[in-house]
Amino acid sequence: MKPYLQLDKNELAAELAAVKEKYDKFCSMNLKLDMSRGKPSPSQLDLSNALLDALPSSESHNASDGTDTRNYGVLEGLPEARQLMASMMGVRPEQVIVGGNSSLNLMFDFLIQAMAKGLGDRPWLLQGQVKFICPSPGYDRHFGICEYLGIEMIPVAMLADGPDMDEVERLITDPLVKGMWCVPKYSNPQGITYSDETVRRIAAMRPAAGDFRVMWDNAYCIHRVGREDDSLLNILDECAAAGNPDLAVMFASTSKVTFPGAGISAVAAGEGNLKLIRQRMQKQTIGYDKVNQLRHVRMFPDSDALLRHMEKNSEILEPKFKTVLEILSRELDGLGVASWTEPNGGYFVSVDTLPQCASRTVTLCREAGVVLTGAGATYPYGKDPLDSNIRIAPSYPTVEELAAAMELFVTAVKLSALEMLSAQ
Amino acid sequence: MKPYLQLDKNELAAELAAVKEKYDKFCSMNLKLDMSRGKPSPSQLDLSNALLDALPSSESHNASDGTDTRNYGVLEGLPEARQLMASMMGVRPEQVIVGGNSSLNLMFDFLIQAMAKGLGDRPWLLQGQVKFICPSPGYDRHFGICEYLGIEMIPVAMLADGPDMDEVERLITDPLVKGMWCVPKYSNPQGITYSDETVRRIAAMRPAAGDFRVMWDNAYCIHRVGREDDSLLNILDECAAAGNPDLAVMFASTSKVTFPGAGISAVAAGEGNLKLIRQRMQKQTIGYDKVNQLRHVRMFPDSDALLRHMEKNSEILEPKFKTVLEILSRELDGLGVASWTEPNGGYFVSVDTLPQCASRTVTLCREAGVVLTGAGATYPYGKDPLDSNIRIAPSYPTVEELAAAMELFVTAVKLSALEMLSAQ
Repeated sequence: MKPYLQLDKNELAAELAAVKEKYDKFCSMNLKLDMSRGKPSPSQLDLSNALLDALPSSESHNASDGTDTRNYGVLEGLPEARQLMASMMGVRPEQVIVGGNSSLNLMFDFLIQAMAKGLGDRPWLLQGQVKFICPSPGYDRHFGICEYLGIEMIPVAMLADGPDMDEVERLITDPLVKGMWCVPKYSNPQGITYSDETVRRIAAMRPAAGDFRVMWDNAYCIHRVGREDDSLLNILDECAAAGNPDLAVMFASTSKVTFPGAGISAVAAGEGNLKLIRQRMQKQTIGYDKVNQLRHVRMFPDSDALLRHMEKNSEILEPKFKTVLEILSRELDGLGVASWTEPNGGYFVSVDTLPQCASRTVTLCREAGVVLTGAGATYPYGKDPLDSNIRIAPSYPTVEELAAAMELFVTAVKLSALEMLSAQ
Repeated sequence: MKPYLQLDKNELAAELAAVKEKYDKFCSMNLKLDMSRGKPSPSQLDLSNALLDALPSSESHNASDGTDTRNYGVLEGLPEARQLMASMMGVRPEQVIVGGNSSLNLMFDFLIQAMAKGLGDRPWLLQGQVKFICPSPGYDRHFGICEYLGIEMIPVAMLADGPDMDEVERLITDPLVKGMWCVPKYSNPQGITYSDETVRRIAAMRPAAGDFRVMWDNAYCIHRVGREDDSLLNILDECAAAGNPDLAVMFASTSKVTFPGAGISAVAAGEGNLKLIRQRMQKQTIGYDKVNQLRHVRMFPDSDALLRHMEKNSEILEPKFKTVLEILSRELDGLGVASWTEPNGGYFVSVDTLPQCASRTVTLCREAGVVLTGAGATYPYGKDPLDSNIRIAPSYPTVEELAAAMELFVTAVKLSALEMLSAQ
């Protein structure tokens, strides 16, 4: 098949009819599949079932320093839990505070603290209309926090090696620009890992706002899929070296390591930020769930155990990513209607359709029984200016379900492109 | 012994010498005991060890509706966990959202939401110097949240049946008075339960501020100690009946039911408040720890199981409260140097010394090896205007340790009174 843009009127009509017929067949298949979120599959969760089975037990619920994990206290987390999360995040234990089951919660709390209490002299809320740099496409839940808190979002393009830093460096001259979202490794949704140069440029920024913060969501730090792993510089070290020890705050969790609903989270930062976070946490809680911290430490006594566990996760995910990429390539290569990423890790494949075709594609899939992440969700305010980005989440379905869903998906991509071209 | 205030100079000197000698003996005993917080004892925690031992297991990690508790989702909590917390709080399941391991965290989050985002038209932070009514003595961590958020605290006296409502009703005519802390049953530290009349007056309030909220921390709702249980009206029902469905927000947790460090918490409220809380939570997290919710539901399949469990807790606590009250009565009755409460439940006994004697008493105890809650901690900004209130937390030590600590305590109360009277 020629690229669709080169088809003449008759060829277009014939292809439209053929693809429409194929699509109608999918509609009669009664597919029912939710691929809207990056949820681990039950077989991945089974890898962590030891957490449910008497680990720790009534015989051994004390931490290594003798702390009874059942009782109150230990605001920053058990020493061995800080060590575990530090090894996962590639930082030092004393830079880490362990939280509850959600790193999103730690990010939200940090930003609402900035709004209500401030990170420097004054609360952001009292400084006027504060703004955030949002590399896009990005993670919808990051953007959701900004929207909720009334932080104006400024989209910045994601390039192959990270955010468009020329644009970022221009924007930070505005003292009302207070921060920037980053998913620096296997970014959501594109799977891009920031290059060393990008990380160093971020670390060396001199924002006009003294209370500017880089929200470094290292969600996929150990989430390789397949053979090759991307490497990412340590932002805290780079910031310290650049004389910016409190520019960045790093977040991570075991949500996609053990149980999404019952893992542990962590924040890592320089001393200034840790002090601010501690000041809040001391008022907010007497301590997070230490029994669950102990469960995780017992399950991963060292970083080798953690990496072996992630290897098993990778073995489950790899055929799913392959299925997605094979079907995209087999069906769409050369048609000129879509491009997509081939990440080495993370939870997503990002597809760009022709402009104005993403929401139609998502609608077509939904009407045939497959729910994708809403078109536009990967952009601030849910508005993709080109209406072209779609996030594919391959993790939850089985390979067979995924193959069926992807066959539908590529058909929908074609159909939406053909509909648009035919209408012109 | 006569009341100290009736002793003449010689008698005072003789008693001071005798009590000082006794105190010095305590100092040589090398006591080492921390009674500063209301921590359950290890034997209480042992009652909940089933939570650690394969409950739920890898064979049964699904909720009753089939939800895999290990994965993401279910923001408001498992239906059966909402049911459990509703039965504990005496409300309806649909009024309940289940949180993480800390109800303090739910309270903090609600108030920082009010500051940064608002509960009505405008964030509290943009309305000027907002204020909170703080019945005192009260819970230091409540006051800590206000202080952190810059909410000015107005102390109001606690009477035998709850806060001084005449004063409260006067204060709420100020539109900058935005709320009020309440520990309505077995209050911290006095163990007072609000009378029906007090609850009804609270529910019927018409504050000038439309975004005024009663923070109803029902921490000790099922925490009877001994035979007799106080009864407390349901504030949500009373508010609804008074046409004030969103005046009060109720909080509770299993921190002093199962594990302080690894329990579950809940907020219960009317539809308007639940909507506000949900709007925040949807941005803040994908869901709290459902595996831990399932653990609690499995451990307490019905409210009878919960009450039987609390009966066992009560059996452990009762001799400790008795020890405290017996020693206070034996050593201080008739001296006119202290008064104290005799609560039917909760975690504390509240002692009032002569004015200007509380901090000296606490210091004397600390110097002899027993750490009490800091004097003043039960008042806003840590400032007890009379310097007379001391919170005794009998739960953590063994009965033997407690007896030794209380003998020291009463000696310190006497000594501080005698020092003051001698100096006059």
